[in-house]
Amino acid sequence: MSADARRYFDLSSPFPMKRGGALSGARVAYETWGTLSPARDNAILILTGLSPSAHAASNEADPSPGWWQDMLGPGKHIDTDRWYVICVNTLGSCKGSTGPASIDPASGEPYRLRFPELTLEDAANAAFELVRGLGIERLACLLGNSMGGMTALAYLIQHPGSVRSHVSISTAPQAQPFAIAIRSLQREAIRLDPNWNEGHYDEAHYPETGMSIARKLGVITYRSAMEWVGRFARIRLESDQREDDPFGVEFQIESYLAGHARRFVRSFDPNCYLYLSRASDWFDIAEYGGSVAAGLERIAVERALVIGVETDILFPLTQQQEIADGLAAGGAEVDLVALDSPQGHDAFLVDIARFGAAIAAFLGRM
Amino acid sequence: MSADARRYFDLSSPFPMKRGGALSGARVAYETWGTLSPARDNAILILTGLSPSAHAASNEADPSPGWWQDMLGPGKHIDTDRWYVICVNTLGSCKGSTGPASIDPASGEPYRLRFPELTLEDAANAAFELVRGLGIERLACLLGNSMGGMTALAYLIQHPGSVRSHVSISTAPQAQPFAIAIRSLQREAIRLDPNWNEGHYDEAHYPETGMSIARKLGVITYRSAMEWVGRFARIRLESDQREDDPFGVEFQIESYLAGHARRFVRSFDPNCYLYLSRASDWFDIAEYGGSVAAGLERIAVERALVIGVETDILFPLTQQQEIADGLAAGGAEVDLVALDSPQGHDAFLVDIARFGAAIAAFLGRM
Repeated sequence: MSADARRYFDLSSPFPMKRGGALSGARVAYETWGTLSPARDNAILILTGLSPSAHAASNEADPSPGWWQDMLGPGKHIDTDRWYVICVNTLGSCKGSTGPASIDPASGEPYRLRFPELTLEDAANAAFELVRGLGIERLACLLGNSMGGMTALAYLIQHPGSVRSHVSISTAPQAQPFAIAIRSLQREAIRLDPNWNEGHYDEAHYPETGMSIARKLGVITYRSAMEWVGRFARIRLESDQREDDPFGVEFQIESYLAGHARRFVRSFDPNCYLYLSRASDWFDIAEYGGSVAAGLERIAVERALVIGVETDILFPLTQQQEIADGLAAGGAEVDLVALDSPQGHDAFLVDIARFGAAIAAFLGRM
Repeated sequence: MSADARRYFDLSSPFPMKRGGALSGARVAYETWGTLSPARDNAILILTGLSPSAHAASNEADPSPGWWQDMLGPGKHIDTDRWYVICVNTLGSCKGSTGPASIDPASGEPYRLRFPELTLEDAANAAFELVRGLGIERLACLLGNSMGGMTALAYLIQHPGSVRSHVSISTAPQAQPFAIAIRSLQREAIRLDPNWNEGHYDEAHYPETGMSIARKLGVITYRSAMEWVGRFARIRLESDQREDDPFGVEFQIESYLAGHARRFVRSFDPNCYLYLSRASDWFDIAEYGGSVAAGLERIAVERALVIGVETDILFPLTQQQEIADGLAAGGAEVDLVALDSPQGHDAFLVDIARFGAAIAAFLGRM
């Protein structure tokens, strides 16, 4: 067990859920970097994609590298000598925050599918309670990546005046049918695995196959065809690395996917995956104004930076443009940055040079 | 049982296979439209994608609509009043030609995984034998769609001088890693279905789940995100159409995929699917010259039409450009047509107006 920098914040109890029901005794895990200023005006909250934990970068309590290690820290693009950075594990996850894998205090058993229907609005409300609980009335910046970008929009629309500036990265104001189709198929692969067993799996009977297919499909859509032409082309594995199976892995790209799946399958809870995936399909800023544009226009921030990637097939650039236009119509000063990173949706995790430069420039003008 | 227009051609026996082994007593199913001219110079051969049968369009023996119904027939884009059109079911398929679902004469049992390793070169050689068997020395035109386009390149490179002109549609000179990744995952979904049972399924124990996931993933990559935004947006099913399951289908796009899967799962043999899918990954025109460009340059046809679609993520336009450039370097007069059809890879099956116009114009100049 490595060091653990997580702290926990108890949510209000009961914590009401958007689609009905409430959580009792729920909490969120979070980590922080830097120091909150006496005026409490230098806080940046990071909302993550579906699977990352709150450990965005190393810190004193946990020196292991985080999922955005090169982005934040002293002197880095998000400079923790200046900013007090908070990263929260999303409500519904299995990385410390309450979710379907947590114990239901009412029964003493894991919630599994008895967890109430989860929306990104709920995740946003949990993050908002944490921020208030840390004594911060107004975030200097709310930053969201991927699913976290949708959660950020839910935060902004539900809590007007609570955020000065917003960084929106490779996300969407609503799920489009291509993204819904992919996520639906990922959920189906998990649910069709007999070991999923309507959510009643355990370590010995675990939906390994379903999770593996879901993850591979994720990786395929998170990256880009263009990047892979350069990285993998048609390179084959050495014959001793190949499987004996006549239809087994033969090309490097197949072994790359298998490696990703292997690392993920047991490290993320399948029921949590289903809940968060479905929440991503449900989110729709148009619910708050009759249309995407009208919903976004109701959001009031002083400034916004919207970053997207040309090769992203899951959250296409057209959707980043919608967000930028909508926030601008709401009165924000908006920078839209369209990057030609070859890594597709995952570029924000990989192409730190380009993303970092855009974010640092934006924060530098605050 | 509907009418059947298929005829059968016996391949040479033994029929040698590229990667070793040979087939005994193998045959291919085919259909024809129009009349072969006395000079035998008006024949067009159509090579199909992975799953279609030889029934490209209605004919006297089988008036049911074919998979390219609006493309060919009397007075249509491929005018069967002028052209003698042959469509062959690919070797390795289950639509009449010999494949893994056929009976192995050596054992009296279906081949299943004892079918020899299949390549598109083998499929091309079988089609070539059929053409020769019909008394045709030289095709007026060889037309290939998708996987059939790769088979066509295999035909051209292996049988120089046998084709006057070539129509290449939404295909590739070699599989790129994105396409390999998708197909590998489709094969994995089938193979991981316990009912696949190393190829030993039957009607009662059939890899329904694996085939369904494979087909849905196919449909997702055959169409385009752009088309779906217009067609499905975020439209939800009526509540009485939804499944009771909390993670069941909710959006129209999900029910569209389910319908496609339902129609496909029992109509295509899973082992045949595995063999043809793997053959698509293996094909590489670079084997014939050291590079894609050099391989294509060795192909000699008088004229070629290369058609691709901007929204095709599986066989991107860059690959159509490669084919056009390579054939031109080989001395062909080449037209490259890049269509902005919204339907992605499947556009050649749907956007008959645009594809038909390009093909008719090309054939009109012969």
